[in-house]
Amino acid sequence: MPSAQVVSLRDKLLLLDCGEGTQLQWRYTGLNWQKLAHIFITHAHGDHLFGLPGLLSTMALLGRTQPLFIHGPETIRPFLDCVLQQFCATFDYEVHYLPVDTTRHAIVHEDRSMQVWSLPLQHRVPCCGYLVREQPGQPHIRRDRIDFYNVPTWAIGRIKMGHPWHTPDGRCIPATELTTPPDPVRAYAYCSDTLFTPALADMVGSVDVLYHEATYASTEADRAAAYGHSTAAQAAEMARRAGAGKLIIGHFSSRYDDEQILLQEAQAIFPDTILAEEHMQVQVLNGNSSK
Amino acid sequence: MPSAQVVSLRDKLLLLDCGEGTQLQWRYTGLNWQKLAHIFITHAHGDHLFGLPGLLSTMALLGRTQPLFIHGPETIRPFLDCVLQQFCATFDYEVHYLPVDTTRHAIVHEDRSMQVWSLPLQHRVPCCGYLVREQPGQPHIRRDRIDFYNVPTWAIGRIKMGHPWHTPDGRCIPATELTTPPDPVRAYAYCSDTLFTPALADMVGSVDVLYHEATYASTEADRAAAYGHSTAAQAAEMARRAGAGKLIIGHFSSRYDDEQILLQEAQAIFPDTILAEEHMQVQVLNGNSSK
Repeated sequence: MPSAQVVSLRDKLLLLDCGEGTQLQWRYTGLNWQKLAHIFITHAHGDHLFGLPGLLSTMALLGRTQPLFIHGPETIRPFLDCVLQQFCATFDYEVHYLPVDTTRHAIVHEDRSMQVWSLPLQHRVPCCGYLVREQPGQPHIRRDRIDFYNVPTWAIGRIKMGHPWHTPDGRCIPATELTTPPDPVRAYAYCSDTLFTPALADMVGSVDVLYHEATYASTEADRAAAYGHSTAAQAAEMARRAGAGKLIIGHFSSRYDDEQILLQEAQAIFPDTILAEEHMQVQVLNGNSSK
Repeated sequence: MPSAQVVSLRDKLLLLDCGEGTQLQWRYTGLNWQKLAHIFITHAHGDHLFGLPGLLSTMALLGRTQPLFIHGPETIRPFLDCVLQQFCATFDYEVHYLPVDTTRHAIVHEDRSMQVWSLPLQHRVPCCGYLVREQPGQPHIRRDRIDFYNVPTWAIGRIKMGHPWHTPDGRCIPATELTTPPDPVRAYAYCSDTLFTPALADMVGSVDVLYHEATYASTEADRAAAYGHSTAAQAAEMARRAGAGKLIIGHFSSRYDDEQILLQEAQAIFPDTILAEEHMQVQVLNGNSSK
């Protein structure tokens, strides 16, 4: 089954991988193409990027004009260049490719809403996952304290930015007394095809939701290792070590008619595990999530 | 909606076009990958060939070893070469590309079961349709005449090939007296994206089933002409002029929520018209077809 996931954060959409059929599946989501500006590809295997040509073409047909940024390992570049040259020359929008170093854990994209970090994975070809972390919001005004000190409206913005309030009688009221902390930020990590990689745990950290591949059951651990994949138990062990709030496993081998065996294996180690399903939507909440 | 059709003839499968998602849709058909050896692409627009990379890769994963032949205009070659170089180098099967001259009506493939002819179409880029014509079978033995002349079993094969039978008393019985004609051959024509092209009628001829695109209704005839497409009325007019047994129209513009308007327009000119549908199977019968 080809891979693709959409992250929706503060009215912006990110696409993580773009397997064949992504544009067809997108229609079911009801999401707005216009809000997608960044695509992140994990590695140059077909089931993670063969949906790009169709997605790019369809957005052109739908009248896209805003630029699109595609991030991924250098190994995706020859395919992307070929597609851009052959099919995208007449587009009314620009496609920019931004290389990602799959050996480093670094910020690969940042704006006011989020940071996106690369997560070095170990697969048969250069491969990296992505960590999406919300930027901190502003602190919340304490209405009772604002009223107590008679703070005028024009000063609220400055206080939210951390400036103190000076009362007419000369007292300095620190912003922390006038506000409560911003909502904790949320984070999601997407670890596609990879061997179990202990060093990944610190990079993933206490994300609210971790997606980790679980191609095989532990009975096929040798096969998993040979093909650069993980078992369900290894995915769960990663979630446990990282301190994730919730685990989603996916990328199951077609040998499993019933994926419950993979779920049970993972839940024995990390109880808050669910199986990825086609069209599934997961709401990322602080410290956990609700499906 | 991406285009792809499978023709099944005498236990062989042909694929006509390979839009994105073809490999995913194939799973629903229950057809055997092993019986597919020839793919025919009409033109180098994404909705007709972006399914190739995934299809080729998946057949490799499924253990294909027999060679695969891809026919199509030279304009598909750069994309195909790129895909083959990037993703197919480690395949256990060979992919052969065979160029098709889209300006000629000629045999592009022939075996014991069928001939495949190119059909020059007129679109915004070089484009051709394909006509699949069954090869004639053998004549049927007339059991009564065989018994009457006491023809021995060893001679039957020769008689089916047209040789006369010489009786012991010196008479020469022509094969036509000992046989009835073979079943009439069946033919199917696939005319993807094209302007209405009067010269096509003679090439299509009295096929049993004609697929012809009908992107627009006649109210959008100017738009059809501008984009190299046909109206439903033009598709029906082509079926009428060619003398087709049945017409399937497809490739509808997404502006039509209800495609009945296209069907009615075509049926007014060519009554035996049906709408192409996802996963639809049509049995091609002589002189007509049954859905």
